[in-house]
Amino acid sequence: MGEFDLIERYFKRPGHQADVGIGDDCAIWTPRAGHQLAISTDMLVEGRHFLPTVDPARLGHKSLAVNLSDLAACGATPKVFLLSLAMPRADEAWLAGFSQGLFALADAHGCELIGGDTTQGPLNISITVMGEVPAQQAILRSGAKAGDDLYVSGHLGDARLALEAFRGQISLPQAVWEAARLRMETPAPRLALGQALRGVATAMADISDGLLGDLGHILRASQVGASIDWPASQSLLAASATWPCPETLAMTCVLTGGDDYELVFTAPASARLAVQAAATASGTRITRMGQITAERQLTVLDAHGHAMAHHLRSFDHFA
Amino acid sequence: MGEFDLIERYFKRPGHQADVGIGDDCAIWTPRAGHQLAISTDMLVEGRHFLPTVDPARLGHKSLAVNLSDLAACGATPKVFLLSLAMPRADEAWLAGFSQGLFALADAHGCELIGGDTTQGPLNISITVMGEVPAQQAILRSGAKAGDDLYVSGHLGDARLALEAFRGQISLPQAVWEAARLRMETPAPRLALGQALRGVATAMADISDGLLGDLGHILRASQVGASIDWPASQSLLAASATWPCPETLAMTCVLTGGDDYELVFTAPASARLAVQAAATASGTRITRMGQITAERQLTVLDAHGHAMAHHLRSFDHFA
Repeated sequence: MGEFDLIERYFKRPGHQADVGIGDDCAIWTPRAGHQLAISTDMLVEGRHFLPTVDPARLGHKSLAVNLSDLAACGATPKVFLLSLAMPRADEAWLAGFSQGLFALADAHGCELIGGDTTQGPLNISITVMGEVPAQQAILRSGAKAGDDLYVSGHLGDARLALEAFRGQISLPQAVWEAARLRMETPAPRLALGQALRGVATAMADISDGLLGDLGHILRASQVGASIDWPASQSLLAASATWPCPETLAMTCVLTGGDDYELVFTAPASARLAVQAAATASGTRITRMGQITAERQLTVLDAHGHAMAHHLRSFDHFA
Repeated sequence: MGEFDLIERYFKRPGHQADVGIGDDCAIWTPRAGHQLAISTDMLVEGRHFLPTVDPARLGHKSLAVNLSDLAACGATPKVFLLSLAMPRADEAWLAGFSQGLFALADAHGCELIGGDTTQGPLNISITVMGEVPAQQAILRSGAKAGDDLYVSGHLGDARLALEAFRGQISLPQAVWEAARLRMETPAPRLALGQALRGVATAMADISDGLLGDLGHILRASQVGASIDWPASQSLLAASATWPCPETLAMTCVLTGGDDYELVFTAPASARLAVQAAATASGTRITRMGQITAERQLTVLDAHGHAMAHHLRSFDHFA
């Protein structure tokens, strides 16, 4: 199967968004007036972002999910994406699974594949997504204010728990392992919540490298600090509901785990009802887990409000 | 050096295009009203698209050039781009050279880096470029008509000649080798010509996989054929001016060479003056090398107008 057959068979579908889609030198697309474009790109490498054993459909899902998560973090609505794919060989079974998982998520969010590239090489998946946001309503990292509440969506740390189990560092009951693995392999980008928080959240980021690291981006961009209420955060690990996770492991997973693709965001205390309404409207669990502070430090507080000693670092691709 | 230091040091620069550039979850950009977006993406893999010995500055140039060439082929004006980079390790000397070559070309065409991703992995460079084209003026592959003239820009085949020499298949005089290697490593995207041909050319594509293959895309999209005048095409190989290239090798290089990043385009015979004016205005050499035919075949004609037997195929990444 040649390069053009491969694109024709697995990736070319009837489109609605683009004026010209796959099959010319460029895709041609006309964004709506009164909107700004939100654009993001993420590259996934075998062994670094996914395990060689991953099911191709789940990998297709995850490759797009991590990109959509960046749109969610700005409050944008996904519109179109481009896919570049390097593969050692054109494996039809793999392509069928990968494209099925990719398009299932794309269709669920109305995001259309309008272009891409395929080539031979070590497995590498690079996606660029584009979304729209009403003019001046993008939620940036730079808007957090001292006194704002600090929230996260969904659960945190289960993907890291799965990774620890996969690496043989811990042993998990079968049901806990399966649930954690699903979190690692098929994250759900929080698009509905992100959009519902436009005009409500003061700052937002998605959690890809671990909470402390990604919250750190917000703190630096906003020139503020934060205190995290650990007792309020401990239950963020979904596995902890059914499995007695040691506290140090829970702390590592929740605070620095990575691969969560949840949203961390801030909002004034006066907006608590509006935040809860956004969560309810989008069907998304949220947890108020701390506060933004004027003092530019990131502190984790125990049940007595005392700072806990921690030496936790988030994931750095070249550390 | 960590991931964020690396981005800060080599890739973050003051911007003008984007409302929000590198450093948030998404770049935020507002295209001009009355324009459509032209979007393209290309992935470059070591050993497939470039040789391991290539100078990093030249590789930085080429990585963006092959993407800009797709914008040129639609008549679009480059505006912004995103870069995803997988590297085995954060090599500062390599990054300094790569980013210097990349930005020199970006600056020459007013194309701004607004986002990207860096990760550890086998060397892989994935760029997405976005440009603007006045509404309904993009030049597509589908507009060629029987009777149209067939043109190419610049020179063809020298990149392939360099590859043959690099592989030890042929031996070239030093000056010929250096010139051919420069063509292979630092192609010049034909943006000024592409834009000047808006409203003049009926169909256009860039030549990345070889003339026959890329012209073939135009012929299929336009449902026409073409005849190529080989005597008029032979001089497209720049090296042939100073080096007696065997005719079969010249034919392989010019017709199927690949890595040329020239434009192949069609225009009615009535537009010959306008085509020449576009070439002159953009300072780009063009060659009228054949004609579009109603009969859906691609024929190469000798000096007597007889079809030449050829079994030439263009590059396919999975063939």
